[in-house]
Amino acid sequence: MTAPLDALREEARSRDRADGLACFRDEFVFDDESVLYLDGNSLGRLPRRTVADMERTVRAEWGSRLVRGWNEGWMDASRRVGDKLARLLGASPGEVAVSDATSVNLFKLAVAALRARPGRKTIVTDALNFPSDLYVLGGAADLLGGGRRVDVVPPRDGITIDAPDLAAAITTDTALVSLSHVAYRSGFLHDMAAVTALAHAAGALVLWDVSHSAGVVPIDLESSGADLAVGCTYKYLNGGPGSPAFLYVRRSLQDALENPIRGWFSRHEPFSFRERYEPARDLSRFLVGTPPILSLAAAEAGVDLALEAGIDRAREKSVAQGEFLVRVWEALLEPRGVALRSPREAARRGSHVSLGHPEGLAIDRALTDEMKVVPDFRPPDVIRFGFAPLYTRFEDLVEAADRLRRVLDEEHWRRYAGPGPAVT
Amino acid sequence: MTAPLDALREEARSRDRADGLACFRDEFVFDDESVLYLDGNSLGRLPRRTVADMERTVRAEWGSRLVRGWNEGWMDASRRVGDKLARLLGASPGEVAVSDATSVNLFKLAVAALRARPGRKTIVTDALNFPSDLYVLGGAADLLGGGRRVDVVPPRDGITIDAPDLAAAITTDTALVSLSHVAYRSGFLHDMAAVTALAHAAGALVLWDVSHSAGVVPIDLESSGADLAVGCTYKYLNGGPGSPAFLYVRRSLQDALENPIRGWFSRHEPFSFRERYEPARDLSRFLVGTPPILSLAAAEAGVDLALEAGIDRAREKSVAQGEFLVRVWEALLEPRGVALRSPREAARRGSHVSLGHPEGLAIDRALTDEMKVVPDFRPPDVIRFGFAPLYTRFEDLVEAADRLRRVLDEEHWRRYAGPGPAVT
Repeated sequence: MTAPLDALREEARSRDRADGLACFRDEFVFDDESVLYLDGNSLGRLPRRTVADMERTVRAEWGSRLVRGWNEGWMDASRRVGDKLARLLGASPGEVAVSDATSVNLFKLAVAALRARPGRKTIVTDALNFPSDLYVLGGAADLLGGGRRVDVVPPRDGITIDAPDLAAAITTDTALVSLSHVAYRSGFLHDMAAVTALAHAAGALVLWDVSHSAGVVPIDLESSGADLAVGCTYKYLNGGPGSPAFLYVRRSLQDALENPIRGWFSRHEPFSFRERYEPARDLSRFLVGTPPILSLAAAEAGVDLALEAGIDRAREKSVAQGEFLVRVWEALLEPRGVALRSPREAARRGSHVSLGHPEGLAIDRALTDEMKVVPDFRPPDVIRFGFAPLYTRFEDLVEAADRLRRVLDEEHWRRYAGPGPAVT
Repeated sequence: MTAPLDALREEARSRDRADGLACFRDEFVFDDESVLYLDGNSLGRLPRRTVADMERTVRAEWGSRLVRGWNEGWMDASRRVGDKLARLLGASPGEVAVSDATSVNLFKLAVAALRARPGRKTIVTDALNFPSDLYVLGGAADLLGGGRRVDVVPPRDGITIDAPDLAAAITTDTALVSLSHVAYRSGFLHDMAAVTALAHAAGALVLWDVSHSAGVVPIDLESSGADLAVGCTYKYLNGGPGSPAFLYVRRSLQDALENPIRGWFSRHEPFSFRERYEPARDLSRFLVGTPPILSLAAAEAGVDLALEAGIDRAREKSVAQGEFLVRVWEALLEPRGVALRSPREAARRGSHVSLGHPEGLAIDRALTDEMKVVPDFRPPDVIRFGFAPLYTRFEDLVEAADRLRRVLDEEHWRRYAGPGPAVT
């Protein structure tokens, strides 16, 4: 085992030296370099600039300017950060806004879409979608009633969706197709343009959750023809815990769709304080209430950093890291009974690789508690290794895999085995 | 004019010296003591401790602990801060959660209430309610359809609601009564227990928006029998711009009501990642997605401070300041054509006093731009002077009123007169 491990380590170091994005690692806070953090797909690292930006927002804006801050940048912040984000999503200014939680945005847009297709009863999604996306879609269907329902396409192999299966599910009764662009568990990457074309051919609208692709996979919302999208800013966009989510509404749909939650920020001229509601005449109609400005400031810093790195360079490195990690898995982990639970082909995968083992939860805990590796666990048996191209090194990947090998060889996982609550 | 002004100034200084809450002023950041900030009813001041708390949350929690922060306090933060807040609202642990924007919470609870009273078609509210509460209620009625509608009781005098008018509107067709406890424009304070009893006698549920009373007026949600409540944390609770809102659901209703937005945090055992939705078995079913942890940390610091001051002491000072400000108005402003647009009786008023003048907008601008007074303006002609008992001094009130007098006597407002967009 030593020989291939040494070779992989040498290759990793060589790749890290040649990495054009290596300098971005210095943009992040590292308090303990010995921890290998492979969970940027859940919560991204803290950018150094965010520390200063938060200090400014708290002290100089809130502390000194107080309510005047609303006229000095806060009022437009949801749209301003949205316009920046649009450049990462293949959208235009005026099509993306940062607001609320992902589930709230999904609810708003799903309800709007269902009401825009009143004669159709079905929402098509797949079982790879994030569970709460399924819950929200189900709740929207229940709320509108009239026999509306969610049709969940299962993955034949557990990790990918066959295009013909999806095509068969999309019919003239389909109001909305709503999918995660990258699946949270397997990392499977849908072909956005192809699925969108399928849905449009049947007269359905399409709503993408790009939480697991934003900032790390190039997304072409406009050119793929996508109608709607939502996503979060705390994964590869490094916006901080619970930083506000975003939504995209294709410009040509903005007049036709209606936000079911008619908050203050969704109104035309909110400061008129009129009793009668009139929706904003642009994307702002999909906002709701006062956005959390401190969390939004952190999100803005993260988006700025992603723009500086460039989405194409990020994807290039992410693909290379994924392919490298699969080779490391083949050398170190497959022989020890660890399964690959992600698509093997890089073009069909986002920026994490999932590894399956019957003792996955215990292994995950042993890695975190004893080995200074932070991946995460997803039931029933999946350990996710996420790579964030702005700060993950190739060497981190081989080192983390080797520590996982030690957890198996030295049976560290045994002390964590047995029933227990799942954790993040 | 000098004689009464001098006497009022002297009285103010004397009251400030005797003020048992005066020491709480030192808990806040004051970068420029010459600014008289009377808009804590819109955005509260920055507590000093919040600066340190934010630094800790950003650096020590996000920066160092990364995703592990979810198991070290973030996961429970919505409920933990809610339990603290419950003590200010007359609620019990397990009845209040901090989450989302006020309008999102209002939507969730209004929809839940309407679905719990399926045979009834009407939501009763009043025209003093915050406009976007009316929009959200209207949106909920539209969404559920079936002839549901909102009945808006008008104020006879423009500033208060007559109990008989409200009583007449509440019928056996009323599903929900939803009101602002303190009216944003006039400061009118509803009798929560009396209105709740009226609604219950007719078989309706009651949903209070306590945004303008939380932290400054004692609220007895449980003993008044209130079913539901929402509110924000950025006014008298000093949680920062757009800090997350809260919701209250009476414990006995928690099983019966359903959250229409079925986010991850609303599920029983969210980390089971199951495909099928099962609502949490307690208040958490009304949560939605990942809360904005940075903004929530600031809210927690503000709530802690309000608890230390004590709600009864806060109300006592607020009432005294309101009565004093009305006397100052009588002496300095009423003779100059400024109207009182709040109830005169302290028991029927929250913690701001509204002053009416045909040139209100221009006066507000002159005060802010030339006089270092920050009140706010609400159309058509109302200037609001808010007093936050934790940091507003009696002297601030007389000084601000005197600067308003100067704006009138010296006609500073003229350069701001004419049509223009309303601002915060």
